[in-house]
Amino acid sequence: MDIKKSQFTVQSDRRFEILNVSTEVEASLEELGVTNGLVYVSTPHTSAALSTNEYEEKLLDDMIDKFKEIAPPDDGYYHDIDHIAAEEQPNAHAHLLSAMIKRPVLLLLEDGEIDLGTWEEVMFYELCGPRERTVQVTVLQ
Amino acid sequence: MDIKKSQFTVQSDRRFEILNVSTEVEASLEELGVTNGLVYVSTPHTSAALSTNEYEEKLLDDMIDKFKEIAPPDDGYYHDIDHIAAEEQPNAHAHLLSAMIKRPVLLLLEDGEIDLGTWEEVMFYELCGPRERTVQVTVLQ
Amino acid sequence: MDIKKSQFTVQSDRRFEILNVSTEVEASLEELGVTNGLVYVSTPHTSAALSTNEYEEKLLDDMIDKFKEIAPPDDGYYHDIDHIAAEEQPNAHAHLLSAMIKRPVLLLLEDGEIDLGTWEEVMFYELCGPRERTVQVTVLQ
Repeated sequence: MDIKKSQFTVQSDRRFEILNVSTEVEASLEELGVTNGLVYVSTPHTSAALSTNEYEEKLLDDMIDKFKEIAPPDDGYYHDIDHIAAEEQPNAHAHLLSAMIKRPVLLLLEDGEIDLGTWEEVMFYELCGPRERTVQVTVLQ
Repeated sequence: MDIKKSQFTVQSDRRFEILNVSTEVEASLEELGVTNGLVYVSTPHTSAALSTNEYEEKLLDDMIDKFKEIAPPDDGYYHDIDHIAAEEQPNAHAHLLSAMIKRPVLLLLEDGEIDLGTWEEVMFYELCGPRERTVQVTVLQ
Repeated sequence: MDIKKSQFTVQSDRRFEILNVSTEVEASLEELGVTNGLVYVSTPHTSAALSTNEYEEKLLDDMIDKFKEIAPPDDGYYHDIDHIAAEEQPNAHAHLLSAMIKRPVLLLLEDGEIDLGTWEEVMFYELCGPRERTVQVTVLQ
């Protein structure tokens, strides 16, 4: 099995922000010069997430509302004590949400096309931005 | 690496419905004529989910109750505004739940047997049915 | 494609317990004598979970608090009726949480090093312990 890899960065502007990175994934594949294989997209961050879903503006607002409801930021988490003492942004809520929504994204690449569903996009979930984050693209052939 | 693929459809009868698709996955593998490799089972839909868990009838009721509690359907979501205006079934709750429970299912295939745990089945989660849905089976060898 | 596999067990001491199994994963890879490939770490249990996140003691308490809030144990679940009748520990909450947090862990192995992020560890989530559980390590080459 041959493994090729690439990566790119994304920049968020807000604390919660959902970014469509499908175009960046496709650009990485083009850069790698691969047209067939299994593509594994991931992010090494534990306070962010990566997944696929429909990238529709109003749905993104629903998602962020739901995330804040499930794990409200700044909710007296034990993990935040040290961050607050160090005058850093608290991020326990982001770890909790990452535990719930992050998953490996696997895509089949055939003749230069990735097999996203009709409404499916590769989405990066910033949960404690603004930050610069890394997305990794690995191709198995 | 050799990639073989197949797919099948499932039909749900209710808005929320959890289907055991282990038998259909096994039939796809037989059809493909493969007996060894890594099997990747997925669904391209963003308002449904695929995963593994125990397929026990009363647990399915607990799951659906919990899903409705976490992301109640028809709860005034922004994403539903256009669907309601178009007289389509609202599905924001289904996207939110898919974001939380969908994951790639990876199974080891050895001598024609997939390595599901004792209580583990491949489960398709219909979150805004009734609908016909696609499940994809990809084998890496 | 060549597939090599190994497994190890973990022992939990409490009902809810999160264990860092990165060292055990690395030991399995050393035992297998592999230094390159894609590593797939999984657990066959449907009332436990496996994932990656930051293994920070106070965050583990936040996680367990949040899990108990999302799916409180012994909350009158249908699935628990038979377990209670059989004088077994009820575990519906564990299946519900597993449905939400379990995911396949995929790691790139290069020159004997797995590519965990700075704050990332492979974590086993015991949701209805104490129990002995199995973690599987599969390497694709």
